Amino acid sequence: MISRNQALALDAIDPLKDFRQQFILPEKIIYLDGNSLGALPKRTPIYLQEIIQKQWGEDLIKSWNLHNWIHWPQTVGTKIARLIGAKPHEVIVADSTSVNLFKLLAGALKLRPDRRTILSEKSNFPTDLYMAQGLLALLEKDYQLKIVEREMLIESIDHSVALVMVTEVNYLTGHRHNLKTLAEAAHGQGALILVDLAHSAGAMPVDLNQNSIDLAVGCGYKYLNGGPGAPAYLYISEALQADFPAFLAGWLGHADPFAFTENYVPAFGMNRHLCGTPPILSLAALDCGLNICLEADLQAIRQKSLALGDLFIDQVEAHCPELVLATPRDPERRGSQVSFHHSHGYAVMQALIAQGVIGDFRSPDIIRFGFAPLYNRYVDIWDAADQLCEILKNRTWSEPQFQQRQTVT
Amino acid sequence: MISRNQALALDAIDPLKDFRQQFILPEKIIYLDGNSLGALPKRTPIYLQEIIQKQWGEDLIKSWNLHNWIHWPQTVGTKIARLIGAKPHEVIVADSTSVNLFKLLAGALKLRPDRRTILSEKSNFPTDLYMAQGLLALLEKDYQLKIVEREMLIESIDHSVALVMVTEVNYLTGHRHNLKTLAEAAHGQGALILVDLAHSAGAMPVDLNQNSIDLAVGCGYKYLNGGPGAPAYLYISEALQADFPAFLAGWLGHADPFAFTENYVPAFGMNRHLCGTPPILSLAALDCGLNICLEADLQAIRQKSLALGDLFIDQVEAHCPELVLATPRDPERRGSQVSFHHSHGYAVMQALIAQGVIGDFRSPDIIRFGFAPLYNRYVDIWDAADQLCEILKNRTWSEPQFQQRQTVT
Repeated sequence: MISRNQALALDAIDPLKDFRQQFILPEKIIYLDGNSLGALPKRTPIYLQEIIQKQWGEDLIKSWNLHNWIHWPQTVGTKIARLIGAKPHEVIVADSTSVNLFKLLAGALKLRPDRRTILSEKSNFPTDLYMAQGLLALLEKDYQLKIVEREMLIESIDHSVALVMVTEVNYLTGHRHNLKTLAEAAHGQGALILVDLAHSAGAMPVDLNQNSIDLAVGCGYKYLNGGPGAPAYLYISEALQADFPAFLAGWLGHADPFAFTENYVPAFGMNRHLCGTPPILSLAALDCGLNICLEADLQAIRQKSLALGDLFIDQVEAHCPELVLATPRDPERRGSQVSFHHSHGYAVMQALIAQGVIGDFRSPDIIRFGFAPLYNRYVDIWDAADQLCEILKNRTWSEPQFQQRQTVT
Repeated sequence: MISRNQALALDAIDPLKDFRQQFILPEKIIYLDGNSLGALPKRTPIYLQEIIQKQWGEDLIKSWNLHNWIHWPQTVGTKIARLIGAKPHEVIVADSTSVNLFKLLAGALKLRPDRRTILSEKSNFPTDLYMAQGLLALLEKDYQLKIVEREMLIESIDHSVALVMVTEVNYLTGHRHNLKTLAEAAHGQGALILVDLAHSAGAMPVDLNQNSIDLAVGCGYKYLNGGPGAPAYLYISEALQADFPAFLAGWLGHADPFAFTENYVPAFGMNRHLCGTPPILSLAALDCGLNICLEADLQAIRQKSLALGDLFIDQVEAHCPELVLATPRDPERRGSQVSFHHSHGYAVMQALIAQGVIGDFRSPDIIRFGFAPLYNRYVDIWDAADQLCEILKNRTWSEPQFQQRQTVT
């Protein structure tokens, strides 16, 4: 436990403190939901105006060449590669996380034609499980999606498993997998491994190459601050690219898209996974968010992220014994969020939001707080914990206006 | 043939003339490529600033509810439905045209489980053919994509055909299909019909319901003026929706996405085809473009579009006999573009662009001019034809700087 003044003192010596000025943050709001929608970089509206007015408005169709729009999926992908420990040509920006999951799941099954199982964990983010279910329903073969508890993952990997699919940091609990151990276990049985980086990239160093990860997807609108519904990205390790088929075989993934030939011939490397025409305005916004991440030191981000988490856990546990920690206490095993169980979690979070502290609720009983080290301060975390404990002490959450059921967060 | 003054006189009495003021158009440019990238509406940068600064910047995650982001795919889809003769709940905005093609192709095959053929035409836009090829490669069954000449389509429909896939207006020639005849022929053999509206929606009245079309996709960045890489849309006729499976089974297509359950349960109707998180910034830009279309009378748009085409054909044929018309002369059978063959088409178009008349070249020998009745004037068409003929007469295109091969348009 520390005092509010001690929290302020930590901010004063924070090596990342200047980054906060690069974001637009509403006054009197403590925003702890950057793991759902990252804050707006100040540079984004300025850059978007230029893209819209100058490039689209004035240069029109010529911008595909003149401003190199046609290569943005690769150039932005290259920047993401630096954040996730990949080679520049191993990452491309395209479509949504869900669609990219489909591409990688379908390709992985073809690379392991004698195997029939996709293995994942019960608490994986639903879209990861759903996309696998949709693919298997389409294939109508004797494939299965095997869903096990996290602790059972490694021992469930056998020679029937084509692919192990996990999310590095769990969206509910913030539990972080040991990717190295998982990859070794998968490869030991001849399986591939696919990692969803939605809750890790940008919030901590990720090292796909070092951990021998085969496949990955990630999201642009969380810690990368790319804006609501920002385009997603996908990664295929260099060694697999040549044989990795593209079943979402859109025209921009063709080896020669402007030849307009009748038959699909896949482009080289990641380019074949582009599919349709890239969303230029959204790509521009993602580029702005990314550029800030690239200016920061990822080790410093991780260090601060964990310190913010420790501070929050310590303060809350000291003052709110009724909250049950859902996040691993071990820093190595957690991401950049802290979650607690509370049987009236929805109402508690509504009451907290009404006081200007924005976290979110996840069914059935999780209140979730994400820490974005580029713009969250120690004093924000101290204040958020303080307000949360006040609400619980005073049972503010039990007032009628906080009792409606959520529809969307 | 008419004089330039007569063209100006036609502009003076054009019922759509005021719409031009709603677009930003660069000076000294005649833009005849709105069928590739529509011009920038003046309202778009203003609206985008509001969405970015106010909604994303200030209201952050709350905007999903507060500003109803979560329902934009439906509300924008409802607007598109008005342009294409569909019911409000038959259209949803999602993903790219290519990805939406995949959704509909995969679902159509399941709805005709005893049939093994997707029938399309040789000159269909490549991504339509490629997406079918990708799907069939994934399914690894005895399916075939049968590609025939346009004239052979109807007689090629038999009981093996699950789906007939066409683009209403051909991207190369501007040829327009008779959808009613095609749909009757398909249905007569028990096949479904899928129509790509990329080059028709927004440039003419489209009536999917009236013509009994089962499935459709379309593009936001051409005549809808939604911006580069704008999101696309898909349509499934009401009668088919209940049985139409979603194999790209993303979390936002779940019946209860915020329950975060382990198993995919498809949402009602079109909602199940949403897949991932919608791209809000791009959706906002598309909404701006669409709103202008909705303010105009589609019959007036069609009438002017054809008149512009007639004017261009007449002027060019009178002065440039070496150009061979690739577009049907019959107004009923053409879209909103006029194309010519020229063996040095690429160089001719480069020379024309250098003079400020923007059309485009399509391999192997097509120069293509799109007419956007909301912002192209009769005098623009007159001037464009005049400049094109000057270039041909003086062989300007044969100068060295125009002889490089295109990489991208």
